[in-house]
Amino acid sequence: MSAKLKTAVLGVTGYSGFELARILLRHPRLETPLLLSRSDSSENSAAKNAVPDLAHLFPAISGNGGHLLHTFSWNALQHHGVDLLFLATPHEVSRELVPEAISRGMRVIDLSGAWRLKQAQHRAVYGLEDANPVTATELTEKAIYGLPELNGERLANAVLVANPGCYATSIILALAPLLRAGVVDLERGIVSDSKSGVSGAGKEPSSRTHFVSVADNLSAYSVFGHRHVGEILEQLNLDSRHLIFAPHLLPIPRGILSTIYVHLNREMTPGQVESCFRDFYAGKCWVRVFATPQLPQIQFSLHTNYCDLGFCLDVDKKRLVLVSCIDNLLKGAAGQAVQNMNAMYGWGEEEGLA
Amino acid sequence: MSAKLKTAVLGVTGYSGFELARILLRHPRLETPLLLSRSDSSENSAAKNAVPDLAHLFPAISGNGGHLLHTFSWNALQHHGVDLLFLATPHEVSRELVPEAISRGMRVIDLSGAWRLKQAQHRAVYGLEDANPVTATELTEKAIYGLPELNGERLANAVLVANPGCYATSIILALAPLLRAGVVDLERGIVSDSKSGVSGAGKEPSSRTHFVSVADNLSAYSVFGHRHVGEILEQLNLDSRHLIFAPHLLPIPRGILSTIYVHLNREMTPGQVESCFRDFYAGKCWVRVFATPQLPQIQFSLHTNYCDLGFCLDVDKKRLVLVSCIDNLLKGAAGQAVQNMNAMYGWGEEEGLA
Amino acid sequence: MSAKLKTAVLGVTGYSGFELARILLRHPRLETPLLLSRSDSSENSAAKNAVPDLAHLFPAISGNGGHLLHTFSWNALQHHGVDLLFLATPHEVSRELVPEAISRGMRVIDLSGAWRLKQAQHRAVYGLEDANPVTATELTEKAIYGLPELNGERLANAVLVANPGCYATSIILALAPLLRAGVVDLERGIVSDSKSGVSGAGKEPSSRTHFVSVADNLSAYSVFGHRHVGEILEQLNLDSRHLIFAPHLLPIPRGILSTIYVHLNREMTPGQVESCFRDFYAGKCWVRVFATPQLPQIQFSLHTNYCDLGFCLDVDKKRLVLVSCIDNLLKGAAGQAVQNMNAMYGWGEEEGLA
Amino acid sequence: MSAKLKTAVLGVTGYSGFELARILLRHPRLETPLLLSRSDSSENSAAKNAVPDLAHLFPAISGNGGHLLHTFSWNALQHHGVDLLFLATPHEVSRELVPEAISRGMRVIDLSGAWRLKQAQHRAVYGLEDANPVTATELTEKAIYGLPELNGERLANAVLVANPGCYATSIILALAPLLRAGVVDLERGIVSDSKSGVSGAGKEPSSRTHFVSVADNLSAYSVFGHRHVGEILEQLNLDSRHLIFAPHLLPIPRGILSTIYVHLNREMTPGQVESCFRDFYAGKCWVRVFATPQLPQIQFSLHTNYCDLGFCLDVDKKRLVLVSCIDNLLKGAAGQAVQNMNAMYGWGEEEGLA
Repeated sequence: MSAKLKTAVLGVTGYSGFELARILLRHPRLETPLLLSRSDSSENSAAKNAVPDLAHLFPAISGNGGHLLHTFSWNALQHHGVDLLFLATPHEVSRELVPEAISRGMRVIDLSGAWRLKQAQHRAVYGLEDANPVTATELTEKAIYGLPELNGERLANAVLVANPGCYATSIILALAPLLRAGVVDLERGIVSDSKSGVSGAGKEPSSRTHFVSVADNLSAYSVFGHRHVGEILEQLNLDSRHLIFAPHLLPIPRGILSTIYVHLNREMTPGQVESCFRDFYAGKCWVRVFATPQLPQIQFSLHTNYCDLGFCLDVDKKRLVLVSCIDNLLKGAAGQAVQNMNAMYGWGEEEGLA
Repeated sequence: MSAKLKTAVLGVTGYSGFELARILLRHPRLETPLLLSRSDSSENSAAKNAVPDLAHLFPAISGNGGHLLHTFSWNALQHHGVDLLFLATPHEVSRELVPEAISRGMRVIDLSGAWRLKQAQHRAVYGLEDANPVTATELTEKAIYGLPELNGERLANAVLVANPGCYATSIILALAPLLRAGVVDLERGIVSDSKSGVSGAGKEPSSRTHFVSVADNLSAYSVFGHRHVGEILEQLNLDSRHLIFAPHLLPIPRGILSTIYVHLNREMTPGQVESCFRDFYAGKCWVRVFATPQLPQIQFSLHTNYCDLGFCLDVDKKRLVLVSCIDNLLKGAAGQAVQNMNAMYGWGEEEGLA
Repeated sequence: MSAKLKTAVLGVTGYSGFELARILLRHPRLETPLLLSRSDSSENSAAKNAVPDLAHLFPAISGNGGHLLHTFSWNALQHHGVDLLFLATPHEVSRELVPEAISRGMRVIDLSGAWRLKQAQHRAVYGLEDANPVTATELTEKAIYGLPELNGERLANAVLVANPGCYATSIILALAPLLRAGVVDLERGIVSDSKSGVSGAGKEPSSRTHFVSVADNLSAYSVFGHRHVGEILEQLNLDSRHLIFAPHLLPIPRGILSTIYVHLNREMTPGQVESCFRDFYAGKCWVRVFATPQLPQIQFSLHTNYCDLGFCLDVDKKRLVLVSCIDNLLKGAAGQAVQNMNAMYGWGEEEGLA
Repeated sequence: MSAKLKTAVLGVTGYSGFELARILLRHPRLETPLLLSRSDSSENSAAKNAVPDLAHLFPAISGNGGHLLHTFSWNALQHHGVDLLFLATPHEVSRELVPEAISRGMRVIDLSGAWRLKQAQHRAVYGLEDANPVTATELTEKAIYGLPELNGERLANAVLVANPGCYATSIILALAPLLRAGVVDLERGIVSDSKSGVSGAGKEPSSRTHFVSVADNLSAYSVFGHRHVGEILEQLNLDSRHLIFAPHLLPIPRGILSTIYVHLNREMTPGQVESCFRDFYAGKCWVRVFATPQLPQIQFSLHTNYCDLGFCLDVDKKRLVLVSCIDNLLKGAAGQAVQNMNAMYGWGEEEGLA
């Protein structure tokens, strides 16, 4: 058996970074990953005080600790001989660190939105500024959007993988089979009414994430203006007028359910719709297609890397409602990052994720 | 001052019936209402055992009890001299009791779906059977759909008021102003993605309402097939192909939020949309129109009789997302029933509900 | 009828202050209260930006706004002719403002812990510093602990009422009848295992009140060291070795349940225990005594000013478990403040609170 | 490597049985377990209709099903050559099936309360009736109480293991080190105020487990009368007058936190208390001792087999508050059953549970 891969994760004090660390610590192909946090971290004040062990921040992680948290530095990465760097950092930080990491010979999987978008108009919502625009433009071109079910074969040679957004994952996986089959009436418009648990809003305390603001409540936000719209449009080759995306904040810790409304451009039977999905995802172990009339629920995919897809077809055979569920921290973030790593190194899609 | 009205409520052991009893007990225009439960109630086994006081079932109701629960009988109603009967009963029961109640000279406000629908095709989903079809047909015609903001003037002379469904209330009030203004592109279709707290599913224990099934979860159900579709279509003069309605079960006890997707048939400014709502609901105290960009949240209308309406208009000036929130047990049931009573007797719209 | 009372509330942007404003706005004995927030408020950033209307912060409050938020100043109070000032402010602020308010002829009800404690050792945990220690000492002596069921007759002439802590209210009301009757074996020790909803931790966002930290969780905190211990001991004439108090944070927005473990120093029957409670609270409308075996639950007292008391007595007739429930924002804060006002002015105990 | 063990689980449609099936399906020492449900099951109506696949009942279980549910029969067990039978059945059923299973040469791990109690007075609360009282008495004597941290060495030869109750596990593991060390003042009494998530109440729908009854609530129940008291007393050699146990129902799906109040009979330092726990559980991988002042929270042990223990010691050095957390479905049921199996067969304590 070949030598084990050397990995590092920066940003393990956030929700996604922690989930990622937890998975990587058990992944059979890896040496113990280097767990990193930025010393000037604004995301978590505890991290500033030289937290020595991840188990102090997340007591759930283990019985006896031993998961030291190191402060990020290029020397530390170099010294450790890191092959693959995971970034669970704000997009500004990822945009800054990635060129250097790649110039130092590492491959990178970035969980932020920094490198997902090819079109400048979509990238604009992130307000990214690059120290070296030429390099940045080049890397933007090279970056592979890390949705393995769609771009799996391109991941093998990727040096930079842009891990998709959580909402985007749930929506793209639901729509791709139908759009590739050419059966969607785009002129009538697609609606994605998506609902997410609170971990999707990040760990930073705010009045919006205060328990009393969220419990016994539901609210819509960023209607027409959410950052994930750009990557959905790019990956599905859609125009902005084809899609309305309205996110909502659910009173649950984690999980996303997207209800997606589509008009077909021809009559289809439920069996044909189901086949469209099953054929598209044949051999992909992390997408589960539900047979009508059963629909996915958020609970079913919690704490798993599955994307669950189901649908209801109207008796008119043309109006179709899709339901897509993921765990936003796993298939929507850390789990998918590991799935991308597996694809980059030619390992089994399910390794470390079962 | 005139004599106080004599009322009775049948079905006070359910969620809506209890909320109704609680409001009526404090309504300044009423004698103490007669609280009734059916002796053969299948909805609540405790009711079978001659529960003597409502406070035993709902300890929240008062400090010292004194709210006796009587078993339903026509004699009891007659003896009490009831003028107005509220039915918070299953639709089959309402369909059976209403003709008799009206023949005995009472006016009726029915909270079930039994008398809401004029068209037989919509009524069919309830599977109603009438002992006297002639009377039933006549009453079906006479019944007023009790949405006071739309049908207020017709309530003054109503003998039978069909209190709207909770989802239907949230959707009709959001759409009526735009549809009456003729600005909706019906051919593109309207989508209502609605989310409800669990009390909307009733008090009967089931695997679906078990805490463990609901908590940390979200699920869609009855897509394309919910009973409330009929009343929405009838009240808004829509065809079934104009509307997709997908209800979802939220992990909260009460409250509804409907996110409604509409295409306008002309360009409008946010100010024009807001005016359309404000003009339509001018002088109506139980609808609150939010100025963009603020959107209603479920918390804002909980424990009130308000319907809160807000919207987002796309930069294309034609794609419109409406957000409508109510407390399903108040504006969606008991509060609206009291509002209907106020309209039937010419009292102030807010009496007993503030 | 006499002229209406002129009141002001400082701190309406917090949870308790908002609940207080909401009650006072409907209280029949009052002129419209002056709603105040400190301009240098650190508790709510929105308040800094000259929020013009309380309904902007709490959209639930009304349909049409009109509840202007003013910035606190002594001139504003004087100009308005305020008779009674409510302080829903941090204890340091209350400690500073109260002497001035009283010197200006106002009566004060303070919701903080600043004036609750007579003994310096207990006050020490608040770290209070007084500009004029002589005045402060004098006011500390004069301050009446505002638990109307215990100190009702002393409230009529009070110039300064120290509104009790939420945990303390639930515990003192449960224990007072037994302790006054001399039936508690103090040497065996009393345990209060108390559980509170998150609003008790205040509105300030923190990692501790983040939804993801609280949901699906329960945690104990401040065991042996909670600030409310002092007032419980003082009001019940206990020594610190008599009581263990362990608070817990519940995944609910509001409500407190205290489970209190007591050893009786003589055998009692359930009837005798119940009588002890009923006799003690005879004529008090805001305490409800439950007959065994029914126990209070948090839901029963939510959104009410009740303190619900119940108990289980062991077959040994000496081991007693008390259960005490309140809504921490009402009987535990704002509702009790209004009850205190009613007592101060000789109004009915239930006025404005029903 | 030796042949894999043949196991069966009866009762996989309940919460504990399902969790057990999920673990066993991945346990490296086992052949695929036989998943069984009783045909006359009253616990789950869906089970009656010959549910073919566990994934239909619990869609979370896998992507592609293949986990057939068989109807229980002795022939099926015999045919399958089952070595070890897990019973996740009501106690009456376990009491009936165990003698037959053992007479057929199987070893049994029973998750119910049927075989946990040696003393008839404690067993009486279960109202058990035995077809063959002699055999039953003999088996009652032979049954090993399956708390591996206490009875690990006796499990190697056990034919019948009585898996502990969930509350009992959390309490016994917290108290055993101190009681064995003889440092508890029993005369002052021990209080366990325990709080459990709703899955502890089972999957059967009832008004008590209805979402609306549980959400935003907390309630005490079965104070002085819970079934788990007997096993706690027996395992810890306590008399009933030494312990007060008050369970509470939390608005969360799973997890138990027990807050336990103890008086020491001598002064101890925090370090001595911590050592008492660490020494007792040295080498036990499923108990984690927290260093003061950190306390366990329910979240930390969710979805793990850990029992987390922490404590607060008063400045008097004698009053001690213990906090003990487990996942009621894992360390409190299915996880512990697997841990017992590991001990019975001499496998590593953590096998299949990591």
